[in-house]
Amino acid sequence: MTQVRVTKESLLTFATACFAKAGAEATIAKTMAESLLWGDLLGFRTHGMRRLPYNVKQLQSGAARGEGSVQVLNSRAAVETWDANGLPGLFVAPQAVEKACTMALHAGTGTVVVRRCEHVASLAAYLQIATDRGLLVNLMAATPAQSSVAPAGSSSRVFSPNPYAIGVPTNGAPLLLDMSFSVTAAGKIRQAYDRNELLPWPAIVTKTGEITNNPKAYIEEGGAILPLGGADLGYKGYGLCLQSELWTLGLSGYGRAEAVADGEQNTFFVQVIDPEAFAGKAAFVRVAEDLLTRCLDAQPIDSSQPVRIPGSGALANFQEQTERGVLLDELTWPRLQHCAKKLGVESPAVLGL
Amino acid sequence: MTQVRVTKESLLTFATACFAKAGAEATIAKTMAESLLWGDLLGFRTHGMRRLPYNVKQLQSGAARGEGSVQVLNSRAAVETWDANGLPGLFVAPQAVEKACTMALHAGTGTVVVRRCEHVASLAAYLQIATDRGLLVNLMAATPAQSSVAPAGSSSRVFSPNPYAIGVPTNGAPLLLDMSFSVTAAGKIRQAYDRNELLPWPAIVTKTGEITNNPKAYIEEGGAILPLGGADLGYKGYGLCLQSELWTLGLSGYGRAEAVADGEQNTFFVQVIDPEAFAGKAAFVRVAEDLLTRCLDAQPIDSSQPVRIPGSGALANFQEQTERGVLLDELTWPRLQHCAKKLGVESPAVLGL
Repeated sequence: MTQVRVTKESLLTFATACFAKAGAEATIAKTMAESLLWGDLLGFRTHGMRRLPYNVKQLQSGAARGEGSVQVLNSRAAVETWDANGLPGLFVAPQAVEKACTMALHAGTGTVVVRRCEHVASLAAYLQIATDRGLLVNLMAATPAQSSVAPAGSSSRVFSPNPYAIGVPTNGAPLLLDMSFSVTAAGKIRQAYDRNELLPWPAIVTKTGEITNNPKAYIEEGGAILPLGGADLGYKGYGLCLQSELWTLGLSGYGRAEAVADGEQNTFFVQVIDPEAFAGKAAFVRVAEDLLTRCLDAQPIDSSQPVRIPGSGALANFQEQTERGVLLDELTWPRLQHCAKKLGVESPAVLGL
Repeated sequence: MTQVRVTKESLLTFATACFAKAGAEATIAKTMAESLLWGDLLGFRTHGMRRLPYNVKQLQSGAARGEGSVQVLNSRAAVETWDANGLPGLFVAPQAVEKACTMALHAGTGTVVVRRCEHVASLAAYLQIATDRGLLVNLMAATPAQSSVAPAGSSSRVFSPNPYAIGVPTNGAPLLLDMSFSVTAAGKIRQAYDRNELLPWPAIVTKTGEITNNPKAYIEEGGAILPLGGADLGYKGYGLCLQSELWTLGLSGYGRAEAVADGEQNTFFVQVIDPEAFAGKAAFVRVAEDLLTRCLDAQPIDSSQPVRIPGSGALANFQEQTERGVLLDELTWPRLQHCAKKLGVESPAVLGL
C-alpha cells in the first residue's frame, strides 16, 4: 500500500496520543497534532504528519520540552518577546498568533517575536487563526543554527532558507501565501538529488562561483542556494533575507553566534493587523476583493492556466481532504505505522481511497 | 555645461523658494525641498531634484495642495490612518515616519497608512528619520492609478511597480534598502528605450505572452513588467506585490476602483519598530552586527566585488556630496535653471566640479 487516506479526526487522535506518549502535556500534545494536521490539510506534505517521528524523537530526547510555558521577556501595548526555551514550535506558533490577534484588536497591530522554539513546520498552518477573525497576518521564521543561502554576489552560506507567509481575509476564501526568500527550498534540492534529477532552474552557486541547476553542488560540494532574484537580481532576495533575520533574530536578541548548537530551533516573528483600526474592515475587504478580481481577470499567458490567488490550491486541498480524508503518502504512512508500533498507539483506521 | 555641483545649503534654499513661489506654505516648501535633496544626496537622482519642476507644476495647477494638513481618519495606540487629500508626499512622508516613531516608542511598533498624497519620490530618503533614533523602519508605497506589473502567469498590467524600503540601525552606518517587487522599474525600461538599448535581462511579458528584454514591448506595445522572480518564480514577486497593495490600498480603504483619476498620487504604509521594546537595543545591534559581519566576510564570486551591505553605496554618495557639493546632472541642472527663470528665483551658485 503506497498511500492511504484517514479521517482527520482519527489522525488528530493518533498524533495527539503519540506526542502524549513521547512526554508532552495534554494541551501541548493536542496543539502539536493540530499544527501538523493543518499542514497536511493544506497540502504541505513535507511539513505535515511526515514530521511526526521527528517531533516524537525531539520530545523523547528532551531536545523539545513537553511541558511548561514560554517566558515573556518583554512587552508593550502592541508587542511581546518570548523565549520558548525549546518548547515545540507546533505548540508555540499558534499561541503567538493568538496573542498577536489580541493585541491587534486593542492597539491596531500586534507583534510577537519568539526565540528558541523547536521547528514550526509549515507557516501556512497558522495563518487562518488570524484571517478567520478578519485580521491580516504576516509570519517570518529563521533557523539560526542553519546556513544555506548566500548573500548576493557571494558563494558562502549565510542565511537559512527563511520562510515568509501572509494571510489576508476577504468575504470568501482568505489569501494564504507561504514562500521563501531564496530561489528554492533546501528540501526541493534534496528531492532532486535523491531522484538524480537537475533542478528546473539555476538555484545554486558553487564554491567557486558558478551558477548551476545541479543539486550535487549543494548537497555534496558545499555550494549555496541563491537568494530570490538569482544571479541578476539577487540583491533583492538578499535584502529580504536580511530583513527576515533582523526582524526575527535581531529583535529576539538571540542570533547566529548564540544559536550554533540549536539544531532546527526557530526564531519567528508574527504580526497581526486589524483592518478595523485603519479604514475599517468593510473598506479593506472592498479594496482587497477589487484587487483580487483584477488578478483573476488578468489575461493568462497560457489560457489553460488562469491566474490564481495565493492559497487557492492549498484551500482546495483542504476542502477535498476534509471531505474524503487526509492523504498520507508513501513516505509518511510507513513512518506513522512505525511510530504507532514503537509507542504502542493504535494507528488511524484506513479509509478506502 | 553638462553637470554641476552646488552646496546642499544653496540647493535647499533654492528648492524651498521655488515651492514657496509655486504656492506652498513655508513649512511645506522647506520639507519638500529637504525630501528631494535627501534623494539626491543618497544618489537616487531620478527621484531627487530632477522632479522639482513636476512638483512645482503640481502645486501651481492645484493637483497638489500647498497648504493645510492631513486628516486623521482613524487611530489606536499603535496605528493611524491619514487622508492627505493631495498634500505633497514629500511633505507627508517624513511626518508619517515621525508619527510612527512616536507611536513605536510607546507601543513597541507604530504604523501609519496614508492615502492620496502626491508622489513621495524616493522611499530611501525617509528611512534615516527612524534609524537615527535607533529604530527599525519599513516603507511600502503604491500608485493606485497606475498599472504596469503583471500577476504571475499573466500578461496584463495590474500592479504599480511598488517600491519597498527598510532601514535598520547599527552602531555605525544604517542598513538602507530600497527596491521594488518587480523585475525592473518602469524608469529603467524608459531609459533603455530612449537609448535604443535592450534590457540586461528579460523583464517584460508581451501582450501575447512572450518574455523579452526589448523595452519596446512595454513602451509601445502594451506589455507588462514581470514580478520579481520572473518567468519561473514570479509567484513570489506576485505575492509580494499583493501584500504591498493590500497593506497600502487595502488598509487605507481607497483602492484602484476609487483612484482612477489620481495620476501619480501614492498610498503608503510606514511601520517603525523600537528594538528596545523587544530584547533591547543593545542585543538587537549585537545580533545585527554579527549578521552583517557574516555577509561582509562571505566569499565574493568576483574577488573585486566584495559583498555589500544594502545602502553602503548610497551612504558613500551622501558623504561625498556633503563634502564636495550635490551633483546635478545634465538632465537635472537645465530643468532647475528653467524653473529659476520661470519663477524668478535665483539659481544656486555653481561650485567647481
